[in-house]
Amino acid sequence: MSARYDIDGLVSRLDGIKTETNPALVKQKSRDFYWYSPTLKRQLDEVSGDVVVSPKSRDEVVRTLEVAFALGIPVTPRGTGTGNYGQAMPLSGGIVLDLSLFNAVTEIHHGRVVAEPGAVVAAMDKTTRADSRQEIRLHPSTYHTASIGGFIAGGSGGVGSIRWGGLRDAGNIISLEVVTMEASPRVLTLTGDDLHKVSHAYGTNGIITKVEMPLTPAYAWVDVIHGFDTLREATEFANSAGEQDGLLLKELAVVAAPVPHDHFKRHRKYLPREKHLVLAMVADFALTPYLAFAARHRGSELLFRNDTLAPEDAKGLPPVFELAWNHTTLRALRDDPTITYLQVLYPFPNQVELVTRIHERFGDELPAHLEFVKFDGKVTCFGLPLVRFTSEERLDEIMAIHEEMGAPIFNPHRYTLEEGGMKQTDEVQLAFKREADPQGLLNPGKMIAWEDPSYDYRSGKTFLFRGLAEA
Amino acid sequence: MSARYDIDGLVSRLDGIKTETNPALVKQKSRDFYWYSPTLKRQLDEVSGDVVVSPKSRDEVVRTLEVAFALGIPVTPRGTGTGNYGQAMPLSGGIVLDLSLFNAVTEIHHGRVVAEPGAVVAAMDKTTRADSRQEIRLHPSTYHTASIGGFIAGGSGGVGSIRWGGLRDAGNIISLEVVTMEASPRVLTLTGDDLHKVSHAYGTNGIITKVEMPLTPAYAWVDVIHGFDTLREATEFANSAGEQDGLLLKELAVVAAPVPHDHFKRHRKYLPREKHLVLAMVADFALTPYLAFAARHRGSELLFRNDTLAPEDAKGLPPVFELAWNHTTLRALRDDPTITYLQVLYPFPNQVELVTRIHERFGDELPAHLEFVKFDGKVTCFGLPLVRFTSEERLDEIMAIHEEMGAPIFNPHRYTLEEGGMKQTDEVQLAFKREADPQGLLNPGKMIAWEDPSYDYRSGKTFLFRGLAEA
Ligand SMILES: Cc1cc2nc3c(=O)[nH]c(=O)nc-3n(C[C@H](O)[C@H](O)[C@H](O)COP(=O)(O)OP(=O)(O)OC[C@H]3O[C@@H](n4cnc5c(N)ncnc54)[C@H](O)[C@@H]3O)c2cc1C
Ligand SMILES: Cc1cc2nc3c(=O)[nH]c(=O)nc-3n(C[C@H](O)[C@H](O)[C@H](O)COP(=O)(O)OP(=O)(O)OC[C@H]3O[C@@H](n4cnc5c(N)ncnc54)[C@H](O)[C@@H]3O)c2cc1C
Repeated sequence: MSARYDIDGLVSRLDGIKTETNPALVKQKSRDFYWYSPTLKRQLDEVSGDVVVSPKSRDEVVRTLEVAFALGIPVTPRGTGTGNYGQAMPLSGGIVLDLSLFNAVTEIHHGRVVAEPGAVVAAMDKTTRADSRQEIRLHPSTYHTASIGGFIAGGSGGVGSIRWGGLRDAGNIISLEVVTMEASPRVLTLTGDDLHKVSHAYGTNGIITKVEMPLTPAYAWVDVIHGFDTLREATEFANSAGEQDGLLLKELAVVAAPVPHDHFKRHRKYLPREKHLVLAMVADFALTPYLAFAARHRGSELLFRNDTLAPEDAKGLPPVFELAWNHTTLRALRDDPTITYLQVLYPFPNQVELVTRIHERFGDELPAHLEFVKFDGKVTCFGLPLVRFTSEERLDEIMAIHEEMGAPIFNPHRYTLEEGGMKQTDEVQLAFKREADPQGLLNPGKMIAWEDPSYDYRSGKTFLFRGLAEA
Repeated sequence: MSARYDIDGLVSRLDGIKTETNPALVKQKSRDFYWYSPTLKRQLDEVSGDVVVSPKSRDEVVRTLEVAFALGIPVTPRGTGTGNYGQAMPLSGGIVLDLSLFNAVTEIHHGRVVAEPGAVVAAMDKTTRADSRQEIRLHPSTYHTASIGGFIAGGSGGVGSIRWGGLRDAGNIISLEVVTMEASPRVLTLTGDDLHKVSHAYGTNGIITKVEMPLTPAYAWVDVIHGFDTLREATEFANSAGEQDGLLLKELAVVAAPVPHDHFKRHRKYLPREKHLVLAMVADFALTPYLAFAARHRGSELLFRNDTLAPEDAKGLPPVFELAWNHTTLRALRDDPTITYLQVLYPFPNQVELVTRIHERFGDELPAHLEFVKFDGKVTCFGLPLVRFTSEERLDEIMAIHEEMGAPIFNPHRYTLEEGGMKQTDEVQLAFKREADPQGLLNPGKMIAWEDPSYDYRSGKTFLFRGLAEA
């Protein structure tokens, strides 16, 4: 691939900044969790950058972008590569801009933290907890590995969303510093509505070099699991637990039988195979009312709480959030590679009904997995249902049925922003890309609106990036 | 009155506990803000206890109840007497149990505080803020004067309810210690669903001697006021601001023109007479997104923020929460004694529509005042509209029209639990009264279910307590 770009010239001009050109190592850093999707696995398996550049400071980022711009080499930023849709994969080769070494927590205040983009979320929390018993509002279930910059550029929410909504809801990011991809890169600070320019833009229109995030108290969170005989009862319970305004929860999910028993190995002895689960993280001081609320609820059975385990039983158990979000999927497809998944929204106020009807229709082809969240001020759920995969056609059909039934799909089997999201151009992000990346060198191929302004999202076809077709 | 009871015997047996029998002083401590209501003013003006007993510890409470029980003297607990419905007024005379000297903060932990019942909310916050920058989740707008025990026994929510819902929502009180009214008073600790036994029971079935409440971070809250040309626009803005899950607010209210200009004297120069206001308390780090959100909203005009005031302008301005909740009413009726008020719920999801229709119907007879809150997991609003009072009949009519139009009333012109609340027997509180106050000596006359089990709530009549009729 390197024939395409002057990588040697780049490396020599980046003297003093860590670079790596060993093809095996570069390929390793050119991948993420795209292989969750059989479709993306087929499309992206051969993708690789030409060089990994690992800046340790904003100045090193600026220098890298300046040289890359001069040489016309594409730059694909990367936090720690835990994204699921090939977001951080360099479709046109070139530079993988590895930000994982640019990772300090630089300021901690009452209610907010400032960090460099490569900081791993769990490491940030460790620092803010030690400083002042604070933690970040929202984190992906890849807490222990994901970077904060990657979360903002590629993630959407997760643990904490039952309280705070999504990552892009106003107030969940305070400010971002971004470096542009121009002859002389500019350093911009974004706040308020301007944050939408770069959050969840997959790094296509600027490199995030500093983040300022709100903090919330780090309480002792207790993992609690209740079992129910039917998916409907579990869903109803979770929904109404989520609507208890005074009950402090950090996570609230439903996983349908038999997935937990079959795939949550370390918890297996607590989880009867026929039980549908509600997983929760509950503040220690909210445990009594949470358990009282559950006890009042038809059909609930307390299966597990980790605050009263004997130390030998607690040892080696993952936290409950590592049974949730995309960890549910991960655990299942590690055991059974024919499993994949979907991302679904069940809109308020019909979520319980919709979940019930959809899962009655698909049965065991589509084991339910729901994540309860705040969404526009109401409680509802997203679905990350497992799919027992047969063919790409059937997968498309399952998605089409969801949409017909009233449950919008965020397709995790596409690598573009638009197809994975709202299936329409994000004018704000596009306008900012024109300004901040006039040559289109940042993470090429991910923003259809840039690559092919006339693309028809209703065509029913999958967008195929030319750069990828050529590679 | 004292002929009714052996007050001398009581006082001598309570040796060592502070007592007061001076009739003027006793009468002072036998009143609350019942005079907000022309109806209650007429009914309760002559009410007085016979003696004020001011215990300073749980032991002194236990001793007082033991002696009072033995002598058959009624006991009406009192925090600081800021209730609005004669709740703390001793309808059968006897003992006013003044808890305001029993007021220490005894424990502070990460996420919770333990205090004695007479602690004033603002004093608790002062202590927990100094200790660990924490504060109580919810407080009445009588923050600077109300006791925590009185809030729990008589209040319902207030500042903080836009985040946490009502005081009686699961999780908003952690535990209560209660002393029973028996020959040998028992000391009980209540948690979980058992809290409903005594919370908002007006002290009719036990004396709260210890409270354990959750804490939340004490951020720097900024007072912000926006103005709108129509009530509808103000209501829509407040509703959607409340639905921003990531925007940390502590208070969110609408006050219709011309009330703010006419009655918020110290803020007057900021408040054009024709503007309908949205009052908010916003965490400092959420101010930029809040202002951005408002700027995007049709018709909003920023009228006031207290973080950028010159010191001479800031001086003497009350906090915005003292323009809200029942302080709105207080400011208006201090200027104009013909004003009174109502308590209304506009149920989700029709709140904006309902507010608009109701206030179009009544016009200036009923200036709107809305308090946005979380209610069963959704954002909606309570109303504390002002009423330009003409007669008790018209007041009843206005309430009836609200109920017909779909907006339940919590009648603030009644002194009983049932008439001021759900207009039905609370079986849990009644059962607990049978157990904890078998002789019916605690705050007599406030629980209809106890006084007159056959009372018909649909009769349309006002309950008149026999003890009061006799007095
Ligand atoms: C098991 C599992 C569970 C997951 N659970 C969740 C979850 O609960 N919620 C959720 O939202 N996601 C989840 N994900 C997806 C992913 O882990 C998270 O979004 C994570 O935050 C991504 O961080 P990262 O550092 O790995 O980013 P990467 O994968 O390295 O990058 C993500 C995107 O951000 C861009 N990017 C990275 N850093 C920067 C920067 N500094 N400036 C500009 N662009 C940048 C990349 O180019 C890429 O487009 C999960 C994934 C897995 C495999
Ligand atoms: C201007 C104004 C604004 C207000 N704003 C609000 C508001 O925002 N939200 C709200 O909920 N209320 C509000 N109120 C009502 C009242 O101020 C609050 O409910 C307050 O918390 C009551 O506390 P207190 O100490 O004054 O109680 P009191 O008035 O002394 O007592 C209230 C009730 O509790 C009982 N009681 C008191 N202490 C105990 C105890 N230890 N054990 C058992 N029973 C006890 C009393 O018998 C009485 O029935 C307002 C009132 C006014 C005048």
